[in-house]
Amino acid sequence: MNFSEKLQSASAKNNSLVCVGLDPDRSLMPENTDVFDFNKAIIDATSALVCAYKPNLAFYEAMGDEGIAALKQTIKYIPQGIPVIGDAKRADIGNTSRAYAVALFDVMQLDAATVNPYLGFDAVEPFIQYSEKGVIVLCRTSNRGAEDFQSLSCVTRQGTRPLYRIVAEKAQTWNSEGNIGLVVGATFPEELKLIRQQCPEMFFLIPGVGAQGGDVELTVKNGLNEEGGGAIINSSRGIIHASRGKDFAEAARNAALKLREQINRFRPTK
Amino acid sequence: MNFSEKLQSASAKNNSLVCVGLDPDRSLMPENTDVFDFNKAIIDATSALVCAYKPNLAFYEAMGDEGIAALKQTIKYIPQGIPVIGDAKRADIGNTSRAYAVALFDVMQLDAATVNPYLGFDAVEPFIQYSEKGVIVLCRTSNRGAEDFQSLSCVTRQGTRPLYRIVAEKAQTWNSEGNIGLVVGATFPEELKLIRQQCPEMFFLIPGVGAQGGDVELTVKNGLNEEGGGAIINSSRGIIHASRGKDFAEAARNAALKLREQINRFRPTK
Repeated sequence: MNFSEKLQSASAKNNSLVCVGLDPDRSLMPENTDVFDFNKAIIDATSALVCAYKPNLAFYEAMGDEGIAALKQTIKYIPQGIPVIGDAKRADIGNTSRAYAVALFDVMQLDAATVNPYLGFDAVEPFIQYSEKGVIVLCRTSNRGAEDFQSLSCVTRQGTRPLYRIVAEKAQTWNSEGNIGLVVGATFPEELKLIRQQCPEMFFLIPGVGAQGGDVELTVKNGLNEEGGGAIINSSRGIIHASRGKDFAEAARNAALKLREQINRFRPTK
Repeated sequence: MNFSEKLQSASAKNNSLVCVGLDPDRSLMPENTDVFDFNKAIIDATSALVCAYKPNLAFYEAMGDEGIAALKQTIKYIPQGIPVIGDAKRADIGNTSRAYAVALFDVMQLDAATVNPYLGFDAVEPFIQYSEKGVIVLCRTSNRGAEDFQSLSCVTRQGTRPLYRIVAEKAQTWNSEGNIGLVVGATFPEELKLIRQQCPEMFFLIPGVGAQGGDVELTVKNGLNEEGGGAIINSSRGIIHASRGKDFAEAARNAALKLREQINRFRPTK
């Protein structure tokens, strides 16, 4: 099963577009909790409610060897049927990007990875060549600084439009393997709508609901494809750090349940 | 000593603008050679000839835990006076980029890191806050795909110019700590000239001489600052894989010597 099939299968089984961001922050965890044990409890509590998990590598790398070990254990522990997206935002020139693809797909055994488009096609190509894996290109990120470059008006022969739209266009032309998706932040619902119109069939990874303040209703109305899917709606802190107490897993389950309901309320019924 | 001072000191001591990219490729190494032992031999053979070393994290991550261990050993082994640039091309939204800065500067103990500008200021800020460390922003990369986005004409109130120039301008406005540099590929000498005119005082990390075909004379004439410095001219494969045989360290020394001479021939004499 390739990434897209695995995603659709998990999404259908759990009736969910929720992705849980496994980004453990020690200062928000119960004291003296092992990172893998924390993730394990979160996964046990939420695996019937999600379409994917998304660990961000930064949090594990910041913990050194122990963090990398916990990440690997976590990836292995996630039930087979649920895809794991490595939020890595990697990219480098050709042969170096190939090494990153090996690191993420072969060594870490991730099902998909986020990549940064700034270096252009040859930086993304080595990821695309893993046709079974998902390659999720940063398009319009959810942060404030996204405006600095992504919104710049770019002049091309086809007219003038923001950089993030040109990134979306290029990603479409690169998508011969059908394994490319886009990162589009929930915090920019109008842009989300435009990018969905432009790319009706791509899957979108949509961060920014929850702690970052993105609106769930607008995210669902603007971000889904015609079949009411094609979206991976991520919440990290809002779910995994819903409680700092010993009830953190139960609180995470409740937060995931609530987000799934909020999303499904606005999904078209089939 | 901050990064910039350390760089200038090593550069003056070794009369060199050469940076050796420590990007070991097992298929180009003598058989059955341990990665750290390989790097150690390269460092022993070249440490009197360089201004910096630059390991690219991708190659180590692709080797798994063993690679990460070899990278850490390598960073520790490099003589104190020579700065180590982590070519990581990281960036993420605010609190996540902070975790990457911790990973690179605190855990890995690197002196500088390359960062990707696509996510904007808040992705770069956590790195800048380490005022003793160097933060090297991708501006015009040396690869073919660089054209895809970096060369797009962007319209702003100050006129129309390529994205990479706007990145350089923004990097200047972000440079309150004086610790920001730019990555500008040697394969685009005209762009290098323009960016140097625009940023007369920033240090540039210039990859692309050697295996990628960048011209040394043009790199030196276009890339240096008024004092004949401010440039870190990187060669990776061209030095460390100059020979696949047991003489690889000697061959690396000769290649580094040659590159230093080629560069110094065109540097202004003080």
